[in-house]
Amino acid sequence: MIKFFYAAHTCALASHICLEEVGAEYSTARIDFASGEQRQPHYLAINPKGRVPTMVTDRGILTETPAILAFIAQSFPAARLAPLDDPFAFAQVQAFNSYLCSTVHVAHAHRMRGYRWADDPVAIKEMQRKVPESVGACFDLIERDMLKGPWVMGEAYTICDPYLFTLAQWLEADGVELARLAKVADHSRRMSERPAVRKAIAAELS
Amino acid sequence: MIKFFYAAHTCALASHICLEEVGAEYSTARIDFASGEQRQPHYLAINPKGRVPTMVTDRGILTETPAILAFIAQSFPAARLAPLDDPFAFAQVQAFNSYLCSTVHVAHAHRMRGYRWADDPVAIKEMQRKVPESVGACFDLIERDMLKGPWVMGEAYTICDPYLFTLAQWLEADGVELARLAKVADHSRRMSERPAVRKAIAAELS
Repeated sequence: MIKFFYAAHTCALASHICLEEVGAEYSTARIDFASGEQRQPHYLAINPKGRVPTMVTDRGILTETPAILAFIAQSFPAARLAPLDDPFAFAQVQAFNSYLCSTVHVAHAHRMRGYRWADDPVAIKEMQRKVPESVGACFDLIERDMLKGPWVMGEAYTICDPYLFTLAQWLEADGVELARLAKVADHSRRMSERPAVRKAIAAELS
Repeated sequence: MIKFFYAAHTCALASHICLEEVGAEYSTARIDFASGEQRQPHYLAINPKGRVPTMVTDRGILTETPAILAFIAQSFPAARLAPLDDPFAFAQVQAFNSYLCSTVHVAHAHRMRGYRWADDPVAIKEMQRKVPESVGACFDLIERDMLKGPWVMGEAYTICDPYLFTLAQWLEADGVELARLAKVADHSRRMSERPAVRKAIAAELS
């Protein structure tokens, strides 16, 4: 059975939602970022990166959101969370998720985790200052060119949707006005009505 | 036929090598980063992100290295560049590549592209100062926990190998001593002897 390690208010929510969407049997373990649990030996033994999510399966340990999302889609093909028999369409799904992890999430991370890339408090503050602009530019591109509607990939709900929803949750705190992102805002609203989304969020905040 | 857009000395090399490894028919177009060609309308019309690589296929346009690498592996299954019939093993491949794009490449990018996350020249300089430490920590983890040997995933050569090789090329300029990374250095040496690697590099530098 799957054991899923997450922390509240992190990108782990995307994988958590997908586990709910496919009806997977799994247990969860919450990692407390506030106390630095992700850096304690018992967790580093499972995930030496000290990050979430981590998914422990019968075959071994998986990390990295895009990899976990594709794994869930491939392991539960009946849920049709990705176009598994079409390499080009699958690559479009993966390209979207790769943009989220390598560009959008990274821009966001300069608000809370600037210490990864600088030590000087003044530089860290300057990084924080630019987050509304850098995250805003990412979401302007998503709004204009990437979110096909009603779901990210068009008519089909895929593993892109919980991931976009998860990162869009951070927009307000990142200082990006949702008013200019009509499609993203509508997407978030419809996502928040899905039973799988409600269940994953309730579990993380309980 | 595939048209592949790249710039020299970028992560596009990973996909370029894989196109050679599978014997794909493709043409190339070089984008001149020095003159800012990636920001010119003719290129933004193809890839609005203004980044490389971009792969134009008969079906449409693909971006993002991890997505392109998996697409090449799935489109040329005879080349066996990924464990396509094993979702868990495929997810391990994807997790490795996702770490490279979202953490390793991002750490490196703070040396040359700090303007993405800050405007103040002092902050940008401070980001550059930390690159040897942040990139070094990523590669220490790869050396210790991730590179199984002889190839990234063990006995099988996969799409992880050209990607690791590509990022390892930047270590010296990033200020990371290769001497402490014996497995990574040996991997790079063996990679550089492969005909596909030699051919892709020669084409990019010609």
